[in-house]
Amino acid sequence: MFQKLRSTLIQSGSKLANNWPWLGDKVNAAAINKTLEVCRYRPHPWSTVHDYVSWTSLTDQTWSARHLPAANRQNLPPPSALKGLFERSTTEQEFCKKSTCLFPAFAQYLTDGFIRTRMPNESAGEKDDPLRKQNTSNHQIDLCTLYGRTQVQTEQLRIKTGATGKKGQLKSQILNGEEYSPFLFDSNTGALKPEIDKLDPPLGLDRCTPEMRNKLFAVGGDRVNSVPQVAMINTLLLREHNRLARDMEKTHPAWDDERVFQTARNAVIVMFIKIVIEEYINHISSAPFHLKMDPSVAWHAPWNKPNWITAEFSLLYRWHSLIPDTINWNGKSYPVAATFMNNQLLLDSGLTKAFASLSEMRAGRLGAFNTSAALVGFEVKAIEQDRLYKLDSYSKYREYVSLKKPQTFSDVSKNRKVVDFLAKNYKTPDDIDFYIGLFAEDTEPNSPLPELIQRMVAVDAFSQALTNPLLSEHVYKPDTFSQIGWNAIQGTQTLRDILARNSPDQGGSARISMTQASWRYS
Amino acid sequence: MFQKLRSTLIQSGSKLANNWPWLGDKVNAAAINKTLEVCRYRPHPWSTVHDYVSWTSLTDQTWSARHLPAANRQNLPPPSALKGLFERSTTEQEFCKKSTCLFPAFAQYLTDGFIRTRMPNESAGEKDDPLRKQNTSNHQIDLCTLYGRTQVQTEQLRIKTGATGKKGQLKSQILNGEEYSPFLFDSNTGALKPEIDKLDPPLGLDRCTPEMRNKLFAVGGDRVNSVPQVAMINTLLLREHNRLARDMEKTHPAWDDERVFQTARNAVIVMFIKIVIEEYINHISSAPFHLKMDPSVAWHAPWNKPNWITAEFSLLYRWHSLIPDTINWNGKSYPVAATFMNNQLLLDSGLTKAFASLSEMRAGRLGAFNTSAALVGFEVKAIEQDRLYKLDSYSKYREYVSLKKPQTFSDVSKNRKVVDFLAKNYKTPDDIDFYIGLFAEDTEPNSPLPELIQRMVAVDAFSQALTNPLLSEHVYKPDTFSQIGWNAIQGTQTLRDILARNSPDQGGSARISMTQASWRYS
Repeated sequence: MFQKLRSTLIQSGSKLANNWPWLGDKVNAAAINKTLEVCRYRPHPWSTVHDYVSWTSLTDQTWSARHLPAANRQNLPPPSALKGLFERSTTEQEFCKKSTCLFPAFAQYLTDGFIRTRMPNESAGEKDDPLRKQNTSNHQIDLCTLYGRTQVQTEQLRIKTGATGKKGQLKSQILNGEEYSPFLFDSNTGALKPEIDKLDPPLGLDRCTPEMRNKLFAVGGDRVNSVPQVAMINTLLLREHNRLARDMEKTHPAWDDERVFQTARNAVIVMFIKIVIEEYINHISSAPFHLKMDPSVAWHAPWNKPNWITAEFSLLYRWHSLIPDTINWNGKSYPVAATFMNNQLLLDSGLTKAFASLSEMRAGRLGAFNTSAALVGFEVKAIEQDRLYKLDSYSKYREYVSLKKPQTFSDVSKNRKVVDFLAKNYKTPDDIDFYIGLFAEDTEPNSPLPELIQRMVAVDAFSQALTNPLLSEHVYKPDTFSQIGWNAIQGTQTLRDILARNSPDQGGSARISMTQASWRYS
Repeated sequence: MFQKLRSTLIQSGSKLANNWPWLGDKVNAAAINKTLEVCRYRPHPWSTVHDYVSWTSLTDQTWSARHLPAANRQNLPPPSALKGLFERSTTEQEFCKKSTCLFPAFAQYLTDGFIRTRMPNESAGEKDDPLRKQNTSNHQIDLCTLYGRTQVQTEQLRIKTGATGKKGQLKSQILNGEEYSPFLFDSNTGALKPEIDKLDPPLGLDRCTPEMRNKLFAVGGDRVNSVPQVAMINTLLLREHNRLARDMEKTHPAWDDERVFQTARNAVIVMFIKIVIEEYINHISSAPFHLKMDPSVAWHAPWNKPNWITAEFSLLYRWHSLIPDTINWNGKSYPVAATFMNNQLLLDSGLTKAFASLSEMRAGRLGAFNTSAALVGFEVKAIEQDRLYKLDSYSKYREYVSLKKPQTFSDVSKNRKVVDFLAKNYKTPDDIDFYIGLFAEDTEPNSPLPELIQRMVAVDAFSQALTNPLLSEHVYKPDTFSQIGWNAIQGTQTLRDILARNSPDQGGSARISMTQASWRYS
């Protein structure tokens, strides 16, 4: 009965807010401000460079910021012993009740843009310490995956001839009647094309067969090619950029190549942020209320401070267990490993079927005992990284974001197996490692995420997305995007909206969604 | 009579605020917030890179930000014709009624730290456009003049052996019983010392005699050596850093070299900001109320946004006419040109007498017809830079900071000669160039500055000093500075306070002040 009442209240509240825009704005602002009030605002006093406050810790963004200072925790179980929390006891994977595979695909594409931990080249003798404490992030949602991380990379990704019909566009090719990024390697010689030699080399290149290598895209992000699910999202945004550039060139014949490029980029970045908030965050949220991207919420907010990606954020986004063992793509099934670096799948299906395939497939359940065997090694790496950063305990992080500290192991999860595992490995609930606690928790009702991850994702999402300079008080106006870009932003709430403008069949009749068709709010 | 009444009111208001700390805090916060409400808050939509909003204009800080967008103004007089506004008609210099020469010395040292326009090397064929549109600034009050602009420079300026009694200190030498930075060149070979070869080379090196060259200091800033007035301030802060480091080493024997260095630097930077606000800004202000560095004013303020030095700021700080033709130093007089790159003056006088000499000397009156002949060429360069940046008119900038636009040329100045000059060169008051208008105005009562400069300096000073990360809500506390550093900050209001701790005679009995001894509030 309470469930029913709650559901009714939720529906009428939601209706109320949707019918009364003024009230809706207030509720939206209140919800976002409340989300951010749970913990300290930036600037963070500490980074991974020093265990105390220094000018370097406050200003050098090549080190990762930290929510809590370094802790000297003692007598902890070795990371290898903790691996067991992630390993499946049966071969059967458990699935998420809410999310489709479009959700992890988007999460990966999004976070690859700013969670950019420096990776040591171990064969070259490079060490985790200090490399993994550093990053190559711009600390912004800037679509560096599409546009490049540096000015030189951006230049190489653009056409820049200013030729009629090509002003302001990114380099691309047409294959099977659809637009994609150009290939990175010359298929005849196998050599890296010299005109795009300043891009970050794709991670995982050593695992590619020659066929896979020939189909790698020349893109901004070094992980865009990692799976076709991610390359797919980049392809969508590439098309949208070039579509906007074509329209802008027509409407503003006096504009040069540079202005068309910059204006189209302004629009695509903001459109992407809108999807982050209105499609992705709403999908994650357990609340029934639909949050909106209202930039004015941030304009005079005390939490509007310069972005800086934290060490904790880089760990809480390791959502390996969301990835199913088997990927269904355009009517066929592939073991997940067969999709790695395999853009041929995307080229064969085309963009609409790729989006449709992911939207039909359930994501894995995020949490304990559910990571694919192929990915368990990454969990151990993550625990080692937690220790390298000297992160404080799970319990301290719950307290930090105003959640209850666990008094007993049973407070962490209702799953007996999880409780037993924790009790076997830790003396008290206060000893649990951050990374272990994150994934030991049960997922929240109506969300694909457990409570602590959900809360920390929300804090970092709002406080780093709404602070984007393109959303700032004197910038977020039609002039910045041209009327064409502004209209496109206003007309976009979902990835499907962009797909409809950029696929030969206008997205077809397929259902494109991060949420499963059968899911209902409970 | 009104004057008397105003003066009485001012005194009682000031007394009230000083006697009632709570009221004082409120008045202080209100004064600062009111100062910043006169114009738009950051982020600035534009920079010198594009004439429209772009991701680059919003994020790439190697270009200078701008308060107003680029303007296409037509039919302007050539810069050479405008030079006349600065040239003296007699050889007699006019003096400022309020400021001593410590004021321009401090202003130069301060602004050299963050107004860092890139200078084209014209003999190497480098061009103003784009070089002078770019900068090498960190956009922070970070004392890069003392500590270096980059991590590599900072490393070279430090001792770093961690030897007992030397932990965390900057390299220095003792001459005549006083501490100075080491010399940059080997006096035997004349060669740049290899252990400090990554510092920015001193500007003006080509004008040095071998004797002057041998006495140049190895310091963070490339303009620190330009005149001994400026080297003097850097020397003071060097001593304070090393003094704090010595004390911290004694009190915290477990701290390593790095921690002592970082903690002393934290304290010296904040101490410097305190002097900027409590000594320098209060000197500039026409208000009788004594402003305080209260970091909490900024914590939740809507204007607390990331710093970014503007093109306009780099121009409005060209205070050439403040510099007297003759410098009295330790009882002798020197033509101003004889002080350029001449650290011998400082070494001969010692620090206390250097500060005392400047405090006894009147600065020039800032404004029209008062620049030393030797410096008039720089005024023409400045006008050219105004045009290169396509700055909007003086009138538009007054409007931007909520000041009245001039209706007639007589609204700009009461000086007939200035009015005639403007009328001769411009069709209407709306045509006056920004740089010309800045210096055509009369100085304000009780301030060394004219109205528009004063207002724009205040806006940029508060909005960029109080946003320093060391002053932020979760950082500005004793732990960040150690109790030693914290006490030193609390015990510092003026340069004299620091001098007393760092000169053999504790600053002696000399008057050290930016304000002339005979000056009275009117």
